Amino acid sequence: MSKLYVVGIGPGEYEQMTMEAYNVLKNCDVIIGYTVYVDLVRDHFPEKEFLTTPMTKEVERCELAFEKALQGNTTAMICSGDAGVYGMSGLILEIGQKYQQVEVVVVSGVTAAISGASVLGAPLIHDFAVISLSDLLTPMEKIEKRLECAAMADFVICLYNPSSKKRHDYLKKACDIILRYASKDTVCGYVKNIGRAGEESTILTLEELKECEVDMFTTIFIGNSQTKEMNGKMVTPRGYKNV
Amino acid sequence: MSKLYVVGIGPGEYEQMTMEAYNVLKNCDVIIGYTVYVDLVRDHFPEKEFLTTPMTKEVERCELAFEKALQGNTTAMICSGDAGVYGMSGLILEIGQKYQQVEVVVVSGVTAAISGASVLGAPLIHDFAVISLSDLLTPMEKIEKRLECAAMADFVICLYNPSSKKRHDYLKKACDIILRYASKDTVCGYVKNIGRAGEESTILTLEELKECEVDMFTTIFIGNSQTKEMNGKMVTPRGYKNV
Ligand SMILES: C[S@@+](CC[C@H](N)C(=O)[O-])C[C@H]1O[C@@H](n2cnc3c(N)ncnc32)[C@H](O)[C@@H]1O
Ligand SMILES: C[S@@+](CC[C@H](N)C(=O)[O-])C[C@H]1O[C@@H](n2cnc3c(N)ncnc32)[C@H](O)[C@@H]1O
Repeated sequence: MSKLYVVGIGPGEYEQMTMEAYNVLKNCDVIIGYTVYVDLVRDHFPEKEFLTTPMTKEVERCELAFEKALQGNTTAMICSGDAGVYGMSGLILEIGQKYQQVEVVVVSGVTAAISGASVLGAPLIHDFAVISLSDLLTPMEKIEKRLECAAMADFVICLYNPSSKKRHDYLKKACDIILRYASKDTVCGYVKNIGRAGEESTILTLEELKECEVDMFTTIFIGNSQTKEMNGKMVTPRGYKNV
Repeated sequence: MSKLYVVGIGPGEYEQMTMEAYNVLKNCDVIIGYTVYVDLVRDHFPEKEFLTTPMTKEVERCELAFEKALQGNTTAMICSGDAGVYGMSGLILEIGQKYQQVEVVVVSGVTAAISGASVLGAPLIHDFAVISLSDLLTPMEKIEKRLECAAMADFVICLYNPSSKKRHDYLKKACDIILRYASKDTVCGYVKNIGRAGEESTILTLEELKECEVDMFTTIFIGNSQTKEMNGKMVTPRGYKNV
């Protein structure tokens, strides 16, 4: 049976993928992905066939992957971070209903929430919520409700897709919603270009975050009521009782 | 300056750690951890000094790690999954305030939410909340509030620490809270021993999950209102509009 692997390559340089992901890529015939991610791994697997499609052609990219697999090629579709977090594994499994002769295997990667947290310290040690600010496929009211409920329950909040040309004020709006429940001194942080050239991290208060302009290669962390800054690191304690 | 690495080794077998984590372990002098995790990597790094402490002696384990580093050993403290998700990196950074001469570096791993999701399919494709059912360090009311708010906002919910001898009915209680907001037919799943010998996954409804007995080596996934079962996989679509 032909195999199609959906592989999370981690946030950046190829050392951040798992050994399992590396072995899958090493043993496959064809690697497919969005151009930027293919460029991150291309040099490490010189003998493979590489196929790229633009960001927007996601359905086409999935169908191309299934067609390649059907032709007998062991095929890997790569995604940044983990393929299962705002990634392609869901779409692959949906489209896979048309391609029952191809076995889909999902191979985990380190998602931006996890890799960004390591850069900042330990913000996600306790319960957290992950929310995308992109309203391309989700109504804004749903996003706002999630921000509100997450803040109400004192979750640490991790924001993906915090910005784009059309959505430059969404982070400000998100902070305003959270500020209804959280102190303006809540410890926050963000990391840009995690694990890639140009990695940059900042720790700041929720009030300061509200006034920030970030780009789409940034992941944002909003602490809970217990999160602290310690020696320049963002740290959430493991619980609410004294350890 | 002495270095102390806090390394997430992923869910199970050592192939699931990143290449970066592997390189850190290969180049360090001392590896410290809870006995079970040390046993997962021991054979791959035969020439290292290994130190283990029981599960409960966490502060002692951290201090031991700093002492080893202070003596000039490059030291790695290992954790299962990612060290920043209900793991040791927070405690290490807290205790590190006493050991300013030691530089702490956190190295990410694939956490159980991510690795378990890959086994089930793609349950976490969209916004999700991660909640621990352990009330050892968190008051039960806080946990209940988080379950309630997460369900209210239609997050996919991932539960860690779903069970222990003293807490065998907590999963039932959690499902009851979620059932106030979610349909009894909500698609759920759980994975036991992710990435280890004895890996087992199950897809079921929320109503069925409520009656399940699971053990502490299990991670649970409760879908949102859009999550579906497709060809035996648990899949959450990327958004709420038609793709
Ligand atoms: C469509 S999502 C893809 C997420 C990816 N599948 C993952 O698991 O990390 C894109 C968003 O992820 C975050 N992101 C992904 N890679 C990143 C990186 N290297 N540095 C900072 N943020 C990143 C940003 O918030 C970005 O807007
Ligand atoms: C104290 S937490 C540690 C989490 C770990 N740091 C991580 O990032 O995966 C322990 C809980 O994580 C989940 N877990 C960790 N490893 C697992 C595995 N291999 N299989 C299933 N669940 C696991 C279970 O819910 C377990 O009760």
